[in-house]
Amino acid sequence: MANLLKRISNRYLRIQIGRTPQQNLFYGFLTYILVGSFLLSLPFLQKTSPSILDNIFIATSAVSTTGLVTISVFDTYNMGGQFIVMLLFQIGGIGYLTFTTFMLLSTTRRITRWHKSILSSEFTLPVTIKIKDFLKSVILFTLIMEIIGTILFFIAFKMNGMATGEALWNALFHSISAFCTAGFSLFNSGFTEYVDDGFINFIISFLAICGSLGFIVVTDFVLWFKNKKHKLSFTTKIILVGFLILLSFGFSFFYFFEPTVASLDGASRSYAAFFQAMTAMTTVGFNTVDFGAFAMPMLVATVFLMYIGASPSGTAGGMKITTLTAVLAIMKSRLRGSKRITFFGRKIPFERLYIATSSFIFYTSIIFLGVFILTFTEGFNLESIIFEVASALGTVGLSMGITGDLSSIGKIVIILLMFIGRLGVLTFGLAIWSKQASKEGEETYLEDDIAV
Amino acid sequence: MANLLKRISNRYLRIQIGRTPQQNLFYGFLTYILVGSFLLSLPFLQKTSPSILDNIFIATSAVSTTGLVTISVFDTYNMGGQFIVMLLFQIGGIGYLTFTTFMLLSTTRRITRWHKSILSSEFTLPVTIKIKDFLKSVILFTLIMEIIGTILFFIAFKMNGMATGEALWNALFHSISAFCTAGFSLFNSGFTEYVDDGFINFIISFLAICGSLGFIVVTDFVLWFKNKKHKLSFTTKIILVGFLILLSFGFSFFYFFEPTVASLDGASRSYAAFFQAMTAMTTVGFNTVDFGAFAMPMLVATVFLMYIGASPSGTAGGMKITTLTAVLAIMKSRLRGSKRITFFGRKIPFERLYIATSSFIFYTSIIFLGVFILTFTEGFNLESIIFEVASALGTVGLSMGITGDLSSIGKIVIILLMFIGRLGVLTFGLAIWSKQASKEGEETYLEDDIAV
Ligand SMILES: [K+]
Ligand SMILES: [K+]
Repeated sequence: MANLLKRISNRYLRIQIGRTPQQNLFYGFLTYILVGSFLLSLPFLQKTSPSILDNIFIATSAVSTTGLVTISVFDTYNMGGQFIVMLLFQIGGIGYLTFTTFMLLSTTRRITRWHKSILSSEFTLPVTIKIKDFLKSVILFTLIMEIIGTILFFIAFKMNGMATGEALWNALFHSISAFCTAGFSLFNSGFTEYVDDGFINFIISFLAICGSLGFIVVTDFVLWFKNKKHKLSFTTKIILVGFLILLSFGFSFFYFFEPTVASLDGASRSYAAFFQAMTAMTTVGFNTVDFGAFAMPMLVATVFLMYIGASPSGTAGGMKITTLTAVLAIMKSRLRGSKRITFFGRKIPFERLYIATSSFIFYTSIIFLGVFILTFTEGFNLESIIFEVASALGTVGLSMGITGDLSSIGKIVIILLMFIGRLGVLTFGLAIWSKQASKEGEETYLEDDIAV
Repeated sequence: MANLLKRISNRYLRIQIGRTPQQNLFYGFLTYILVGSFLLSLPFLQKTSPSILDNIFIATSAVSTTGLVTISVFDTYNMGGQFIVMLLFQIGGIGYLTFTTFMLLSTTRRITRWHKSILSSEFTLPVTIKIKDFLKSVILFTLIMEIIGTILFFIAFKMNGMATGEALWNALFHSISAFCTAGFSLFNSGFTEYVDDGFINFIISFLAICGSLGFIVVTDFVLWFKNKKHKLSFTTKIILVGFLILLSFGFSFFYFFEPTVASLDGASRSYAAFFQAMTAMTTVGFNTVDFGAFAMPMLVATVFLMYIGASPSGTAGGMKITTLTAVLAIMKSRLRGSKRITFFGRKIPFERLYIATSSFIFYTSIIFLGVFILTFTEGFNLESIIFEVASALGTVGLSMGITGDLSSIGKIVIILLMFIGRLGVLTFGLAIWSKQASKEGEETYLEDDIAV
């Protein structure tokens, strides 16, 4: 028996060694989803009896930090089950945050000199830092942020008259959910009750923005904020500027053109406009107003914001701001008729552009395909379907309210989209189709890259 | 007076010389649209009194060979006015056909060796041919096809019991309209009456496919068909194979999944499925069934077909099959993790990919922007708006029936989209923003290229 187990585990190890990093990520996420689905299927963690498909849906939604739900988490699972859901999006969030941070650093030499500059000169971490220590600081960063979030949430919930135990549990759950941009809530109507609560609006926005921007951008910004002599890296600047522009764009549109927001009074109107733009961009997916009641132009604008998403260094989904900037750079250079592709005076290397354009093409194609399939299987109007697909692929979790009424095929499509969205369209493709397992040992190479 | 005119015309010539080819095309189309709008505004060419905006709309739709109409051409203009409309889409069609053929040949040395091979070895035209003679043969090709079309249409209309004079006028008008993929019709209900008329279905399809594939592909194919020793050029192969695949895809979907098509009997069902796929792809824009009654999945499929369009060497609009192949090549190579981007074993040069990806990005962005603006100004459902925008930018001319009910701003947006669609998104961008007028004299260079 022990022998058998050993042989199986050896076999597993051997398979794992032959895998590309993309395949490892693929199987890693898949394993968490399967284990999560199994746990959520255990009757003693449930209040009601959800279908297996719904359990898989919730597990995928949690691991992918999307937050779309076909059933109410609060009504379906007891506190144990809710804890499992929380664990899943915590793992998904940390897993993705460390992965994106790692990639941002490790792609340094292999992909661009653009990133390299961060590590070697502009970025303050000593070049000799070990990758393991580095990942430890990312996890530490996550935990500190989540503890701060829990404390703030606890105060806010207490101020709203919640009982201590309930407030504590809700504070922990929503703090992790916000920082991991998971968007899972124990309130069946989301945060619509708190649309005029400036403190709660602030807590969620703070956590979600920090989470979606990620460790590198946040620490870089904090260092610059504390000491103006510290120079922001080019990547950080691009991400921050892009984020601010898109956020302002979203805020203005929601503030001026969305009737459901415009009908609110005073500060609430600003809160609501800011929150809805923030939630689409950071892909946290909480909402304080009902997107199902939105007017058509704002639905299209929200789809755009979800489509772009935020930073490539955090927990956010979407096509990423950096892809957008590369795409803009191509457009600009093309129109100027110049062959060198530059952005803010810096030449963008071919590999970066290649990745950006393929991301754009894949992302757009998958959205199109997803919408096409759902128009066959679902009876909802087109805007609900496009919204749902963009939300799932961007791991945003906003919905016009159709998630619970999806057909089984519809649920499976959304599960696939959330999974693809979390892995990233390119990573997903590479995990499935790439035949050349990294013979040169990519990981060794990358570790070299960092540990020099 | 004569002196003044001479000075003005000199001035005009001087301006024109300083222009890039893109700017010449831009101003050329603009001039035709303005002259056309003026002529259509003349009361003695009208039956009723359309607004100036509607006249501009019709002129733009004709010159761009789109075929979207805010008013009925037959009910609004008398035969003189109808003749002007026909003249405008004939000019637009020939202008574009010669331009695309010219570009396909002339970009040879400058952009890719891929095209060069057509001219220098595979393509049967002697390399010493003069560009002027070449354009003459394109125009001759157009006229011959249109005469054949007129004769066939005349027979068909006579068989349907039309009076001789009426049949002749309708035959000429619809023959030119079909070959130039203009989609203008003198029948207010389009060709819905002829849904079960195999002969008329054949005539339109034949003309539209030849027109949309263009001179080079058609002649290349005819030579190969006559003499199997003649080898098809790579470009021709790509375009034909792509066209057939997309057409089969479209046909199957319409045949099996579209209720309005499936409800037809026997041959009519095949005719209707083929015709609707053909009309979207060749961008001719005639229809034999009502797209306004289509089910959602087929609307999405039609948008996809209109989005792609057909060949870059003919009169069709859309993003072009060649762009699609380049985009597919990028996706494939990316997934395989290979750096060389190949298609059917041929390496696609960087410049070609750069143009294809920028086209894709621009095209997608403009559709998104157009839809976004129209959701503000129009009250129609989202699918009607997306359909209308894709149809206008692809110069297809199909509609779910909202064109006549567009607001003034909506009409202006559609006018702009048709104009941009006809020029090509890149050409349009380059005409507007390109600062570097071709100092080296692009045309001289190109002539050199051909006349060697
Ligand atoms: K989310
Ligand atoms: K057309």
